[in-house]
Order: sequence, then structure tokens, then C-alpha cells
Amino acid sequence: MTEVNDTTTPLLDKINLPDDLRKVDEKLLPQVCNELRLVLIQELSNNPGHFASSLGVVELTVALHYVFNTPEDRIVWDVGHQAYAHKLLTGRREQFHTNRKLGGLHPFPTPAESPYDTFTCGHASNSISAALGMAVADSLSESKRKVVAVIGDGSMSGGLAFEGLNNTSSTPNDMLIVLNDNNMSIDRSVGGLKHYLHHLHTGQTYNNLRNRTAQRLMQWGWITEERRKQIISFNNAMKSLLNNQHNIFEGMNIRYFGPYDGHNVTELVRALRNIKDMKGPKILHIHTKKGKGYEPAEQNATIWHAPGKFNPETGERVEENDSTRPPRYQDVFGHTLLELAHANPHIVGITPAMPTGCSLNIMMQEMPERTFDVGIAEGHAVTFAGGLAKEGMLPFCNIYSAFAQRAYDNIIHDVALEHLNVVFCFDRAGLVGEDGATHHGAFDLAALRPIPGLTICSPLDDHELRHMMFTAQQPHQGPFVIRYPRGRAEHTDWQCEMKTLEVGRGRCLKEGSDVAVLTLGPLGNMAARAIRKAEARAEAERKSLSVAHYDMRFLKPIDEELLHLVGSTFRHIITIEDGARKGGLGSAVLEFMADNRLTPHVTRLGIPDNFVEHGTVAELHHIVGLDENHVVECIMQNP
Amino acid sequence: MTEVNDTTTPLLDKINLPDDLRKVDEKLLPQVCNELRLVLIQELSNNPGHFASSLGVVELTVALHYVFNTPEDRIVWDVGHQAYAHKLLTGRREQFHTNRKLGGLHPFPTPAESPYDTFTCGHASNSISAALGMAVADSLSESKRKVVAVIGDGSMSGGLAFEGLNNTSSTPNDMLIVLNDNNMSIDRSVGGLKHYLHHLHTGQTYNNLRNRTAQRLMQWGWITEERRKQIISFNNAMKSLLNNQHNIFEGMNIRYFGPYDGHNVTELVRALRNIKDMKGPKILHIHTKKGKGYEPAEQNATIWHAPGKFNPETGERVEENDSTRPPRYQDVFGHTLLELAHANPHIVGITPAMPTGCSLNIMMQEMPERTFDVGIAEGHAVTFAGGLAKEGMLPFCNIYSAFAQRAYDNIIHDVALEHLNVVFCFDRAGLVGEDGATHHGAFDLAALRPIPGLTICSPLDDHELRHMMFTAQQPHQGPFVIRYPRGRAEHTDWQCEMKTLEVGRGRCLKEGSDVAVLTLGPLGNMAARAIRKAEARAEAERKSLSVAHYDMRFLKPIDEELLHLVGSTFRHIITIEDGARKGGLGSAVLEFMADNRLTPHVTRLGIPDNFVEHGTVAELHHIVGLDENHVVECIMQNP
Repeated sequence: MTEVNDTTTPLLDKINLPDDLRKVDEKLLPQVCNELRLVLIQELSNNPGHFASSLGVVELTVALHYVFNTPEDRIVWDVGHQAYAHKLLTGRREQFHTNRKLGGLHPFPTPAESPYDTFTCGHASNSISAALGMAVADSLSESKRKVVAVIGDGSMSGGLAFEGLNNTSSTPNDMLIVLNDNNMSIDRSVGGLKHYLHHLHTGQTYNNLRNRTAQRLMQWGWITEERRKQIISFNNAMKSLLNNQHNIFEGMNIRYFGPYDGHNVTELVRALRNIKDMKGPKILHIHTKKGKGYEPAEQNATIWHAPGKFNPETGERVEENDSTRPPRYQDVFGHTLLELAHANPHIVGITPAMPTGCSLNIMMQEMPERTFDVGIAEGHAVTFAGGLAKEGMLPFCNIYSAFAQRAYDNIIHDVALEHLNVVFCFDRAGLVGEDGATHHGAFDLAALRPIPGLTICSPLDDHELRHMMFTAQQPHQGPFVIRYPRGRAEHTDWQCEMKTLEVGRGRCLKEGSDVAVLTLGPLGNMAARAIRKAEARAEAERKSLSVAHYDMRFLKPIDEELLHLVGSTFRHIITIEDGARKGGLGSAVLEFMADNRLTPHVTRLGIPDNFVEHGTVAELHHIVGLDENHVVECIMQNP
Repeated sequence: MTEVNDTTTPLLDKINLPDDLRKVDEKLLPQVCNELRLVLIQELSNNPGHFASSLGVVELTVALHYVFNTPEDRIVWDVGHQAYAHKLLTGRREQFHTNRKLGGLHPFPTPAESPYDTFTCGHASNSISAALGMAVADSLSESKRKVVAVIGDGSMSGGLAFEGLNNTSSTPNDMLIVLNDNNMSIDRSVGGLKHYLHHLHTGQTYNNLRNRTAQRLMQWGWITEERRKQIISFNNAMKSLLNNQHNIFEGMNIRYFGPYDGHNVTELVRALRNIKDMKGPKILHIHTKKGKGYEPAEQNATIWHAPGKFNPETGERVEENDSTRPPRYQDVFGHTLLELAHANPHIVGITPAMPTGCSLNIMMQEMPERTFDVGIAEGHAVTFAGGLAKEGMLPFCNIYSAFAQRAYDNIIHDVALEHLNVVFCFDRAGLVGEDGATHHGAFDLAALRPIPGLTICSPLDDHELRHMMFTAQQPHQGPFVIRYPRGRAEHTDWQCEMKTLEVGRGRCLKEGSDVAVLTLGPLGNMAARAIRKAEARAEAERKSLSVAHYDMRFLKPIDEELLHLVGSTFRHIITIEDGARKGGLGSAVLEFMADNRLTPHVTRLGIPDNFVEHGTVAELHHIVGLDENHVVECIMQNP
């Protein structure tokens, strides 16, 4: 365990940029690593972020910047969770306390922020493809630059990583892939690849074989010491035969080295130096431990993936007292799914590598045989769900909205086309806060709405989420999307009795006559407050204002009766959604009005046509105009 | 070569369903195969379709239906190109002449058509995931059903297939994967996996090793015949060591069998029988030849993938005389890209496995080092393009619109977020005709429009396509989408001088005062004819009608000046696009009008909210109301 009492960092204090690091005596690198860990622990205990991943790659990060001439040489991180040490070594230690905050350092490496950040890395498994593009560009322009992709074994389970790997041998390039094998995604890694990697050794299988051969032959008295030379030559032939044909990487024409101990910085530096200038693509396989160097994180890397604030000395996490607050939507999903699964034997649960994050782990613990963590593989998660549904099961497939973009075709081709009964729960929909531009679930409503036969809904609160899940699992509902945000729901008494909602039917939350506010999802609660505020302000100003509020519940099929009524009764309509303004609820309302020759003024509030950065959800909602004050202004301007 | 003169099919005549096949004496199966080939050749020579793939799996198809109890047992085909023999054996020989025609048999297996068709299979690489879902469902319900996925080596390069494979060992299932290895997609297979498979043998590597060991040891005089027994036991130990640790499939806990000769139906039947009842997931690797049994197709499987009509006896293809007709958009793309690449050294070309289909092969022949066929890997194609762009190259990434759905996240996360200079050419946009519901490029406009910073355009004709490509390759354009349909362009003299278009600027093709027709893409030509017709009809009826026609050129950024003018001048607007009505051009126009408090009537013509089946493009455009007559009616009703 890192000694957290000694808080001095004499070496690190002299390292602002990798150039400074490269001047440090090689013997002192382990100390640099210690100091980095110390800073990470101190900083993150206070300003929460991704913890365990970054601790696991401290030595690798130091070795890479020590051996390679960054930023001229390119390091492409796969998922920026692990890149905090990288930030500290590349001129951002001073600002590190702003990490993930509004206007501060980005949550993940971003080329816009630093020349040392080479590619967007919010979604897993893209590093090999991106690095290959860079390496091929370099080879076309005859640059001498080196390109290194750093990818974890979890990310390696994504199909995109395999596609990148499969193409690596197709074109001339000198890329190095570092496979950081810690047997973890956020949760534990799953799948066959993990078994394969576990058994993979260049030398070792061969060595085993050689030893067995030698032992047997000697045992049987066939060989003597004099024949050693012949044996060595024979062994080499065997080795090349084995390696060329059977190691999957070697078999794909990528030279394989490893596995190495990823926490031995001296060994890593030596290994990287040895292979750095080799021609052709190559893979360096290292073993690391997520959370390395901080005992509590080593013990439970999933909790310590992003632990929140904690006491660095005791490892005690600052946990909020939750008993008096509404649960998170995630918990409501998790408990409700288990409840439904008890009653409906066809229900199964699927998550691509997020059992803890989405709370499928609640069902997983009680019904392991009916829950499936498929690894970082959103496309497969959906097609697999399609196969299950085809044979009569009822999969609840939970994917973070932004990552579901990976499965867009699978939703269309493998589920919607045959109108299969799959329930998609798209978690982290809308603006997600500190994880920033790559993680906002902004496009789901607009992208899914044109898909024929899809039901798309979003709950106002926890009770509604339960009703929607209950409704979705009725027979013959076809593909059914329920999208809800990260974070707290509305009620502490969330365990209401569930009821069947009429699909495609919204509801009036408040009558009114001047303006109609149409909302989809939990922003409806904010809208309700804004409506009260606006009416109160009007009253104070002795104006008459009467605002109606409709919770649409369903984006598709949209409630045409409701829209007819609203469109023919109100001159002013305001639509509010936590999704892209282009193509979502607001556009659906406009389309209906146009198709029915109704002509109310429609003001559409939603996520604007630019990528939204990081900050708290409240800050971001304020920036994009999805906060109470802005809605009040809109209402006041419209009647 | 199959004897095409003998056109009798005495065995096949008695086989209506697989039950009948299973009564045939095993010795006669080769003859059944011959007869199937005969029918395929005769039928396809007359009613064009996918030829070479189906010929390659005749023996496999017969063996599968012979050994497995279909339809109770499930065969999941990966890409329906290969499933014609399957159709002939499953009760559809009589209707086979309607294959791919409006109202006729579907182009690809479809559960809606036959109980023998188990899953949608228009997009590659989904079979393992879907079959795994089915197999797991069976195992949960304790059914005794068998599930078989049949996947080609080309499809195996798709990341989705790898995700499926990676998950196959995670859950209890008895699935069989048949890997149909013919070293081809539509074009030749590419990538590392192909090398790996090429060298893969259960027995064979081991056999080589064993033989070498034995030879060497005997050569050196160390062993004698008497020691053979000891050697065999030693060999077995070596074999298990090798197989368990190094064969990637075995390493992923999937039992591997093969490779077998996929054209020896007797051997296939034996192999399938041997492994059919084995517990756990398993893979059977077979080698086949695309086009097998028809000499011209064996010689050039790419041309004979879908050869059109041909003379079955001579193998002469009925080629259209093209000299007097406009070229296809594909040819214009291919030649124009080469022309641009000559002048702009940063341009590179990328295709996911469609060099012939999209005509990138034109540039490929002259500049092999600047063109990349990445295999069936749309996601990688886009992220790879992002990496190239990041280092200053200018990739033209050509993907069929429907397949680009696979790369939705990559477009957002790996290109748009950093505003990288990648030109996306989305081919086969809009309704594609005979390939049907899985292949229509219906969703691209609606799904891409919300992505910030994207430029999205569609050319009216070949000249415009050239201008758009010319414009897209200027510096700093950011991500630039050009979408165009399958098929013929407008001009025989398509090689116009290229010019730079103003991004986000449409144009007036015809002035008018009563109705404004706004079109995007080549349907504008149909609209122009409809406008002339409508005005002529009005004149004949002595009514006054003056219709304006605007070619929007750009969906995004949309021409706000033009829309202002149109919105404030015309009471009636008709929008026309070959894409989903929900969320596309029509919705963009409505959004603009609402945001600017303009209130013209807007009639939106586009692809309706249901999956459109197969038929000729003209038939389908008629069905969805995107034909001349319907536009005439719309115009007449609107002023």
C-alpha cells in the first residue's frame, strides 16, 4: 500500500511535461510511480473521479512517456478512465483539481485540451482502429512517428477492437498495441477471450512443451547432454511453427510479446525499448491490477472504479445518507425488474458490462441463470436479445443511451424488423453531467423515432418507470424503449403497485388555457415547478396566466388525441425534452400539427445542435435552457 | 461443371420439405446436390439473384437439413445470399421464380415467410449472437432443440460476430457454429483472421509437428518402431496441450472441428452426425468454393455474386449496352474519386468489403496503397477514417446507407466530436429495390441530422455528385456526408468540370408562385417532371398553377435564407426526400418554420413509418407515394 502519510513529491514536482520525465534517472522511475499514486489518491479523495483504472496503469503510463517521444509519438488511450496519471505527467497537474468540473479539465482525454491527447476516448474499444488510422497515415507520409494504442482486456471484448485487430495486418504499419490485462471492465471481464488471454504466453506454452519433451526424452534415456545443440535447433523450429500458426495475434500477423508484469516499471521500460523500433504491428501483453497500490481499491475494484470522495488514510468512502432521499432510477429499475421476473418466468436481463452501473446486479444475484453480462458488446447485447425473444423469452436489455448508439443497426435489423418483444431500458439518457460530451444520451429519441414499430417512452418519475416496465412486459408489445436519466428519482415511497399504461396515451397533469407545456420524461417535474413559478409571477404582476401541463409519456406512438386537443385549443405550445432538439418530441409535435393542418406556435426546448461539455447536470441544464428559469421565461414570452 | 444439358431432377421433384429429404438414401445425396445446382443455375439465369454464394453451400444445406430436424431445430443463416438452396428444399421451389419480385419470395430468409427461416439475415455477422440467444432460450426452457449458425469467413470479420463468439462460452448452450470458409465476402476476404483461418487445423498442425518430431528422431536414430506406443501417448499429451491453449476457438471454450471439405456431402453428414449431440458450444470449420459447380462462377465469384441474367449453357452474361445510357452513381463516384485523388495527395479511400459494389475498385487499381478494403467492418471503417483524418489525411469512406447504421456511434464519437475531415459517401441511400427491407437506406437522414457539426447533402444528379465530392475535399470542411442512391444517374456526359458549392446553400430550379416544391437528392428529377405535368394539366383544365422548385442540396446546414423566402412567400410547401418521413428534410423545414414563426402548410413526402418490402425501385416509389403521379396529385390538391 502506498504510504499516504508522506505527502511530498520531490521528483514529480520537477516534472511538468514528459520531456522532464525523460531526464529522470531510470532507477528513480519506481519512485516517480509512487509519487504519482500519492497525488492520485490525494486528489481523487477530494475531487471524485475514476480511481482504480488510473492506479492500475501508473507504471505503464510512466514507461510509455519515458520511452516514447510524446507528443510527437502518439499514445491512444482506450477509454479515458485510466488516463489520470497521463494528465498529471502532461502539464495538467496544476489544473487537476478542476477535473470533470464545469470549465475544468475534461473527464477523458480530448485532443482539444492537450496535444498529448490524441483521440476521443469516451466509448470503449476504438483505440486500435483509430491508432491504425494514425499509423497508416504516418506510413503514407513517411513520418517516423510511433503510434501506441493502450487497450484493456475489457475493451478488447468489443467487436470494434476485433475489427481493428483484424485489419492491423492488412496494411503496412508499425503500430504497437499494449494489451492491459487486468481481467476487469468496470465489473469483472466476461467471455471467452478472457479465458484465451489467461492461457496465453509466447514463451510459456512453448517452454512447457519443450520441458516436457526434454524430460520425457531424457526419462526414456533417448537424449544426452551432448545432443543439446541439435535439440535447440529443433526447438526453434517447433517454436516458430507453434507461434506462427496458433497464437491468434501471431496468426493474424501481429507479433506478440508477453505477458509482462505491468507493475514493474523497469521491466516495462526495457520491453518497450526492445520492441519500439521493430517494423510491423506488434502487441505487448501486460498484466496489471486495477486499483494497484491502494489496498481498499485492490480489494474491490468495481466499487473503487469511481468511488466518490473518501478518506485517503482510512479508505473510508464518504457515503451519503440515502434513507431520506428518493432512490436512483437505477435502483428502481433493478428492484422492479427482479420483482417482475419473479412473476414472469420469460423475463431475462441483459447488460453490456454494466451490471453494477445499471443495477442489473440486483436480479443477477438472485437469478444468475436469467441474467447476462455480455461484456462491452452493445451490438451483441441487442442481437442476443433478439434471438432470445425469437424463442419466446422476454429480454430486458439495459444499455446506457450513449453506448446504445453502437447498437443502432441491431435495434433496427435484429429486433424491430421482426417486431420482436425486447424491452430496451436506456439508462443515462439526456445530459449525464460530469462524464461529458461522449456520455450524454442526446441522440436516442431522434434516432429511434423513425424506426417502424418501436414503442418509445420515458417516465416522469419512479412510479411511472415501474408502470412502464410493467406495461412493457405484457405479451406482444413488440420492441419497447424506456429511457430514463442517471440519478435520483422523485419519491422515497417508490414501491407503488404497478399498473398497465395504455400505450401511446399521455396525460394531463394540470389544466390551463393560455399555454400548453408538453414534456417527456423527468424534466416534467422541473416544468411543473416552472409553471407554478410563472403563474405566481403573473399573479404578482396582476396578469392572467393559465398554463396546462401534459406528460406525453410516449414519444411513439404519440398521443394523437391529446395533440389534436392541444393543437386546436392552444395558440402556444412549449415542448420540453432532455434530448436533441432536432428530430425528437418537438419535431414529432410539429409533424403532427402540419399533417393535421393545425397551426399553434410551437417552442421546442431540448439539447441544442452542439456537443455539450461536462459539468453538473444542473449546470448543463441551465446552459442549454432546460432549467426552471428559462422555462418560466419561455412561458411568460409566449402567451 | 454441372451438366446443364440434363435438366431432369427426379430426386428433387420428390422433395418438397426437409422431411422428404430425410427419407432419401444417403448414397443419393450427391445427386440431390447436383439437381439443386441444376435448378439454381436454370432459375437464376432467368430471374437474377445471388448466385455464387448459394452454389457454394449446396452440400452444406443438404447435409444440415438431412441431419437436423428442421424446422424444430433452428438453422440461422448469416446473410441470406447463400440461402437459395435452403429455399428450394423448404417448400418454396414452386414460388422460386418470384424470388426478389414485388409480392414474391423475400430476397433473404425471413421468419415471416417460412418457419424454416429463423432470423432476419440481411446484414452480415449477426448469426452467432442471434443463434446464441436462441440456444440460451432453449437451454432455459429445457428444450431439446438444436441451434446451428452458418457464417462465412467474410462475415466472421465483423465485430458483431466476434462479440457473439466471445459470449458463446459464457452461458450454457449447445450451439453449433458452421464456419463456411471460402476466403470471400462479395469481394475477396481481407484481414488477419483470414490468415489465421488459413493456417488453422485441429489435427493438421499437430500432425505436422508429430511427423517432424518422428522424422527427426528417427533420422537421428533415437527411436525405433517398438517405441511407437510410448510416442503415441506422448503425442496425445502434446495435442491436448496445443489445442486447449492455442486454437483461438478452443481457447475460448468452443470445441473446434475441421477443416472439412464442404463439397463432400457424405463427409459433412458424417461430421454433423458426430458432433450434433455433443454438449457445449462447438464450431465446424469447412472449406468451400464460392460458385462451386459452375465454371464461370468458380473463375470469378465476385462478378458472379449477383451476375444478372445469363445463358446457362455458355455462361455468357446478358450485359446491357451501356454506352448510350447515363452511368451509375457508383461509377461517377469511383471515377471522380480517382480524379480528385490525383490532384489531392491527402485523399484516401475506404470501403467495408464493397470495393466492386461501390466502385472504389477504380481507385484501388491505380492507387492500391491509398485505398483500404477493411472487410465487413463498418464501425472500424469509420473509426479508422477518424484516425487517418486526425493525422492529416482526407478519407473518403464509402458505406451503403443501411450498413452505415452499424457505424452510427463511430460517426458521432470518433469523427463528429473532434470535427474531423472525413467524407462519408453513403451509397444505396433511399429505397434500393429488390434487396428489400433490410437494405433500404431509409434512416440515414433522420438519424444523422441531430449530430452536431455534420454537413449532410445529396446530389440531384451526377454533375452535382461531382461538385459535392469536389467541395467536400476542400480543407477544413469537417465531417461531410454525401448520400446517393443505387442506380443510374442523369447525364451521359457526366464528366463536367467540378466546382465548389457553397455549403448550406440550395438553389432554385424553377420559379413559381403557388406552391413551392423542396427536394433533396435525385428524386428532384422526378419532381421536376411532376411539376411540368401538373402545370400542363392545370393549363388543360384552364386553371392557373405556378409551381416553384428548389433543390435543397444540403439537409444540414439547411439553407435558412431560402427557407425564409419560401416560408414567407408561399402558402403551400411540399418536401420530397427518399428517406424516412419522420425526422428528415420535411421535419427540418417544419422546425425552421416554427422557430421563425412562419406558417405555410407543409406536406412532407418520404418513406412512411413502416418497413418497405422488396420490388423494383419504381414499384416501391409508387407504393410509398414518391412517384410522379402522386406528386402531381399533391400539387393539385395544395394550392
